[in-house]
Amino acid sequence: MKVGQLGEFELINRLKEILKSELIGDDTAPIKIQSESTLLLTTDTMNEGIHFLSNYLPEAVGWKAISVNVSDIVSNGGYPEWVLISLNIPEDLENSYVERLYKGIDRACRFYKCKVIGGNIAKLEKISISVFVLGRTERFVGRKGAKPGDSLFVSGTLGDSRAGLELILMNKKEYEPFELALIERHLKPTARIDYVKHIQKHANASMDISDGLLSDLWHLSERSSVKVEIFSEKLPISKELKLFCEKYGKNPIDYALVGGEDYQLLFTHPKSSWNPFLDMTEIGKISEGQGVFVDGKLAKPKGWRHF
Amino acid sequence: MKVGQLGEFELINRLKEILKSELIGDDTAPIKIQSESTLLLTTDTMNEGIHFLSNYLPEAVGWKAISVNVSDIVSNGGYPEWVLISLNIPEDLENSYVERLYKGIDRACRFYKCKVIGGNIAKLEKISISVFVLGRTERFVGRKGAKPGDSLFVSGTLGDSRAGLELILMNKKEYEPFELALIERHLKPTARIDYVKHIQKHANASMDISDGLLSDLWHLSERSSVKVEIFSEKLPISKELKLFCEKYGKNPIDYALVGGEDYQLLFTHPKSSWNPFLDMTEIGKISEGQGVFVDGKLAKPKGWRHF
Repeated sequence: MKVGQLGEFELINRLKEILKSELIGDDTAPIKIQSESTLLLTTDTMNEGIHFLSNYLPEAVGWKAISVNVSDIVSNGGYPEWVLISLNIPEDLENSYVERLYKGIDRACRFYKCKVIGGNIAKLEKISISVFVLGRTERFVGRKGAKPGDSLFVSGTLGDSRAGLELILMNKKEYEPFELALIERHLKPTARIDYVKHIQKHANASMDISDGLLSDLWHLSERSSVKVEIFSEKLPISKELKLFCEKYGKNPIDYALVGGEDYQLLFTHPKSSWNPFLDMTEIGKISEGQGVFVDGKLAKPKGWRHF
Repeated sequence: MKVGQLGEFELINRLKEILKSELIGDDTAPIKIQSESTLLLTTDTMNEGIHFLSNYLPEAVGWKAISVNVSDIVSNGGYPEWVLISLNIPEDLENSYVERLYKGIDRACRFYKCKVIGGNIAKLEKISISVFVLGRTERFVGRKGAKPGDSLFVSGTLGDSRAGLELILMNKKEYEPFELALIERHLKPTARIDYVKHIQKHANASMDISDGLLSDLWHLSERSSVKVEIFSEKLPISKELKLFCEKYGKNPIDYALVGGEDYQLLFTHPKSSWNPFLDMTEIGKISEGQGVFVDGKLAKPKGWRHF
């Protein structure tokens, strides 16, 4: 059935059923904050045709819409708590699409331990999902604060998401297992919620890598007023990305430097705060000065831009 | 210049300049909440072609995008504090349009005493503005809580916005002064922030009238499990709406009952809590039972639906 036939209130009822949230039903969602912790607010959007295609699994789109927002909260050292969703959809969209989208949202919220407490649905030609997340931290860690002498770290591996997107756009009939793994990393990124305590305790500066490493390093350098040096041979490359680059004649370093949407963390602290239980890699160092240098050469900011 | 030529970061810099917000610049916006008050969260969207037309003044669109959200906070007895904006725009939109939109947003935020602390900009074929507001109250008042014996009140006058919209759609070369007043009420509604203390102190149930009185009365009746009776001769009609209805042969009661987007408040409390300094009108009463009755007859929910 199309959402236009189902009607707004019936659609909302079905989504409430999926989310099992008792807080939905008033003009605002009331919440109680007991302690004096810092609240973190963020919003990010997924637009059809720009951030996802209409043939993507709606569950994955819902998962990703939550994950990219949680990634922002996590990168500043916080845990996500409350979620609002502003959903814009065409009238002739199948309501099963919306319900599957919300199943993905619900799955992500249960994984990250946050809760959808409100939202809004409106009509638009294309699907546009704006998610708002309210998180909490005992200590806010932002892009400002990187100190000369700090080492620079990233979580996980870089460049996988970009390779996954290129593979999707190849529209192949069959994919090899390593290709499917890269595609999954693009479609279903996981915010690094396992790093929250480490960031809160140790990081002097932190952000997530969403636009691409180089572009995000420039943000860090400018906000912290420091020089950032990285070494390309230290960049963490997955074995799947290596296989991809061998097969298609690409350079994995390019993918790691400018491929966006990895949703890994970029943070700085003294080398001594290294945590062997996390998949963190030291990729460079912070010193006095300005600019971003790769293997000793000044690098231009390059990466994903919305315009 | 088109936003596609200006570039994302330069556009964001100009908007930060307009908003004068130092909090913008990290993955999340950190805020400190000192007391143990209840936080109110809400989101609402304005979509081009659905909620506004491309020839509306961008300042008015920005003003309204904030006002409709503040109205939700106010209706639950709260003051707005923090605002995030998720803006979706086409690449070929003039950046002056976006700057004027943000001037309207800034003017509204200063009027309501809240602050934009973050947001996101993404590409989309049509303009879509999702606003997220975080407010605070000492006492949350929602749709549930109306008590048998309560009187039912509304703020201001009803039906003006709908008449204003119809006048805009007539696309006339010249408008009479009362017509311009109605048009202004549609384009630039004001959230009833002057009612916050009254709602907080006295109301047993409260909501804003956005979909239309009848539709919203049904929400109140269902959430409070009470019978709602109103009397059409008591509905507050502006002199401008009366002139409009005389000129075009319409019935003002219809406009007051089903015209949406008035952003007036609908609330219940004992008659004794009447406040002579507010423009409130008693339009009916709450009793045991269920359903919504107008002049003794059961009324169907009717009003604006998104689908």
